[in-house]
Amino acid sequence: MNIEMIRAAQQRLTGHVRRTPLLSSPFLDEVAGRRLFLKAESLQHTGSFKFRGGWSAVSALDADQHKAGVVAFSSGNHAQGVALAARAHGVIAVIVMPSDAPDTKIASTRALGAEVVLYDRATEDRKAIGDALATDRRLTMIEPFDNAQVIAGQGTTGLEIAEQARDAGVTDGEVLVCCGGGGFTSGIALALEAEAPDMRVRPVEPENFDDVARSLRSGQREVNATTSGSICDAIISPQPGAITFPILHRLCGPGIVVTDEECLHAMAYAFARLKLVLEPGGASALAGALFHGGEIDGDTVICTASGGNVDAPMFQRALTEYGDKI
Amino acid sequence: MNIEMIRAAQQRLTGHVRRTPLLSSPFLDEVAGRRLFLKAESLQHTGSFKFRGGWSAVSALDADQHKAGVVAFSSGNHAQGVALAARAHGVIAVIVMPSDAPDTKIASTRALGAEVVLYDRATEDRKAIGDALATDRRLTMIEPFDNAQVIAGQGTTGLEIAEQARDAGVTDGEVLVCCGGGGFTSGIALALEAEAPDMRVRPVEPENFDDVARSLRSGQREVNATTSGSICDAIISPQPGAITFPILHRLCGPGIVVTDEECLHAMAYAFARLKLVLEPGGASALAGALFHGGEIDGDTVICTASGGNVDAPMFQRALTEYGDKI
Repeated sequence: MNIEMIRAAQQRLTGHVRRTPLLSSPFLDEVAGRRLFLKAESLQHTGSFKFRGGWSAVSALDADQHKAGVVAFSSGNHAQGVALAARAHGVIAVIVMPSDAPDTKIASTRALGAEVVLYDRATEDRKAIGDALATDRRLTMIEPFDNAQVIAGQGTTGLEIAEQARDAGVTDGEVLVCCGGGGFTSGIALALEAEAPDMRVRPVEPENFDDVARSLRSGQREVNATTSGSICDAIISPQPGAITFPILHRLCGPGIVVTDEECLHAMAYAFARLKLVLEPGGASALAGALFHGGEIDGDTVICTASGGNVDAPMFQRALTEYGDKI
Repeated sequence: MNIEMIRAAQQRLTGHVRRTPLLSSPFLDEVAGRRLFLKAESLQHTGSFKFRGGWSAVSALDADQHKAGVVAFSSGNHAQGVALAARAHGVIAVIVMPSDAPDTKIASTRALGAEVVLYDRATEDRKAIGDALATDRRLTMIEPFDNAQVIAGQGTTGLEIAEQARDAGVTDGEVLVCCGGGGFTSGIALALEAEAPDMRVRPVEPENFDDVARSLRSGQREVNATTSGSICDAIISPQPGAITFPILHRLCGPGIVVTDEECLHAMAYAFARLKLVLEPGGASALAGALFHGGEIDGDTVICTASGGNVDAPMFQRALTEYGDKI
């Protein structure tokens, strides 16, 4: 896993993946106490950065693999990213999703042509189900984060951040990344190591799902005590990946931990000040920048917004609770 | 008023105004029955395209005018556009706003450093109030649409649409523009006349505020019967401008008229499929593309999203009424 793979992925993605804007607002600068930028991957095709990794992985397969099809497990964003990338390549996709995933994610994954297999997040092992499907139907597994081509695709976000920040006169500062298994975070960290070495990547996780923060402290891959119970469904992976963790350990940290309520509050800020729809997990990095400023160094912070696939009732909850607290 | 003024404005705007993305979604293509693109000016600085015209006008003033300050009347988007542009130029701004404008617009205009003067939309004449302020305090009036430099700034959106559409392989089709007094519409029409002559501009207005549609039919500047009563506060100007109408008449039409409910429904679609926050008036062109397909020709439609400055309760209303109808 190296920068050359990210650059090669960028070649394959050009013309297919959106170059999302790097946004800002004087109002958010004021709340954050420093200059704040937000990389709006919520505006990526399928509503999250996961389309980058999906396209990168599917486009890297050979003709036989394309003919047989792919399988993935995902709470919904990787699901849609792989589904759309597979459809564009004429490849069959089977997606294993938790039955408590947001309705919009399940419905959209099906609408993008994928076969969806539901499982119970509390009692079943999604990887085991996916592996069995891969074996039985000769499908190629596209892991959500522990897959070099997936990481390479996500890393293209980092290449864009470096370039867009440079255009805005920014070459250093902290880069807060919404972090589940670490594919997005490690890919961005590798890209910035090459293109913006004075930037430091900080993984942001929800309370009780801070496996990466704890792993960065202990130096080994820690596991979360539970696999459900946060509204940040997109980023509650059980532990850092075998491929992602060494990269995270070498380049990132310390982790920042935010509450679900802080994510809802950040969603209301993104609504009011950036006119963006973010999902709770996708707002976690913004929550870190707005409400954990004391843990951040420097006069510039760049946040990723990883996704915007949120059901209407959850978005309304954010506005009801925090619409007048901005 | 000509294309050279738009090109000159683009020079002055470069580096200050955001190049907003041209977005799309396979789900919206399906509803529209044709390929649909949306130019997301809701992501412009201050949450609407009005910042373009504000910057263009303020940057075109001379040193004496800068020293004295500017005045504008606006329901809120032009207000914020002028306020931020003035602040960036170190120029005092006084903004005349209706007292029933969305709270977020009044508060943001003040927070951007402008002095806000409120008036009653039903009984007072905003232009008279603005003109009196201009005379008494030697302020330069920046009209919301009937001002050549403002139109030139808005027209830069059209230059971007032509280029971004070309990058997507599109050189013809209908371009639906959210239309109040016609500054945005006429500026885009002039830009497309030069850069994408096979595109046709269609003004979109709310029911009962269809002065432009009626004027295009009659050939003279018609007036709306009322000045309030639509949730599309951004685009309920009383009549087409003296500068804008000849351009609209030469290049645009016929007009498309949408209901407030269709705008709310379009807001729910933009939330779910594009992850964008649109205000009712800013969703009018999308409403035209989604719900008035029978009035549109061709296999491609490009909509502008003019703004996203909506209070939380109005956005929640859109999600409550239409969140499950997408």
